[in-house]
Amino acid sequence: MQRIGIKTKNRAELVDITETIQSAASRAKIRDGVCLVFCPHTTAGLTINENADPSVREDIVASLNRMVPADRAYAHSEGNSDSHIKASVFGSSLQIFLEEGRLCLGRWQGVYFCEGDGPRSREVWVKFIASEMR
Amino acid sequence: MQRIGIKTKNRAELVDITETIQSAASRAKIRDGVCLVFCPHTTAGLTINENADPSVREDIVASLNRMVPADRAYAHSEGNSDSHIKASVFGSSLQIFLEEGRLCLGRWQGVYFCEGDGPRSREVWVKFIASEMR
Amino acid sequence: MQRIGIKTKNRAELVDITETIQSAASRAKIRDGVCLVFCPHTTAGLTINENADPSVREDIVASLNRMVPADRAYAHSEGNSDSHIKASVFGSSLQIFLEEGRLCLGRWQGVYFCEGDGPRSREVWVKFIASEMR
Repeated sequence: MQRIGIKTKNRAELVDITETIQSAASRAKIRDGVCLVFCPHTTAGLTINENADPSVREDIVASLNRMVPADRAYAHSEGNSDSHIKASVFGSSLQIFLEEGRLCLGRWQGVYFCEGDGPRSREVWVKFIASEMR
Repeated sequence: MQRIGIKTKNRAELVDITETIQSAASRAKIRDGVCLVFCPHTTAGLTINENADPSVREDIVASLNRMVPADRAYAHSEGNSDSHIKASVFGSSLQIFLEEGRLCLGRWQGVYFCEGDGPRSREVWVKFIASEMR
Repeated sequence: MQRIGIKTKNRAELVDITETIQSAASRAKIRDGVCLVFCPHTTAGLTINENADPSVREDIVASLNRMVPADRAYAHSEGNSDSHIKASVFGSSLQIFLEEGRLCLGRWQGVYFCEGDGPRSREVWVKFIASEMR
């Protein structure tokens, strides 16, 4: 698998990693199949959403903050329980089809790393599975 | 991959696509492996849930509407920020095991397209990966 | 695929199945690829989250209970609508990379079965896909 470093800048943000993942696909030997992306952290996740208007990302971050407030009374004492919970809401992995070496995304889709407890140095892991044409 | 058209009828609804995905599996050459389903839209998602009592689907739609109200003050100005957020809560893809050409689902499970900003003409993309028996 | 039994003890809890899934991987013939885990139930899901402090799991369960209260007026009459909704928030499947027969998890990650309507006897289904090294 490929391990790719990501720098995040805020406590909670959606970082566009579409080109990063496409570059990983271009380095892979497999041209047709599935690109699998995995987040090895427990206070961050992955999602696919709008790539055009950046205000959508702001709305996603703000809405998750309302669903899972940071300042509730939590059992976990590290002050990042909200980040753990958001990680489970987003999920830890993505699958994206690959055809002729290109990620198959919808017209308005981008790939996002969902930071929940930054800023930090993070990683995503990427692996490719060939699909059989027969 | 197979591209399959779906017509949705309401702004927010869960459309049963279980038979649609099973038909795609029947057309595929692979009999054993994994069926991958991808939603190429940013205001809709995919989920697996109860296939018996349709009121479960109503409850899911209503509960997501309460978690992510449509009428909040959002940054994105197109009036569908809630739909984008719900898409990330549901997720953009599913994986379902395939054995002897049949989708492996639990007794009460069906496959649903989660429309968030309909009614619209939508698509799901489906791909099959063979699993090695060795 | 392998079918693995799980006993849950509470109505809502996160049961650590990391070792269970690693054991399934050790029994598989495939050493490098992807481990896919599927939950065949509609009132339970799967997630990957913190494996160190068990209070994180308590916070996840409590937070989901707040997002989706059990005692709202739901259309579904079996008293477990909240469990169905949480199942869709968590999701029904996981993908975990496999290298040299070991699950590739981040330092703080564990694999959890998210019971929503227990205590019950449950199952998870596990399948392995080989990745091509070429």
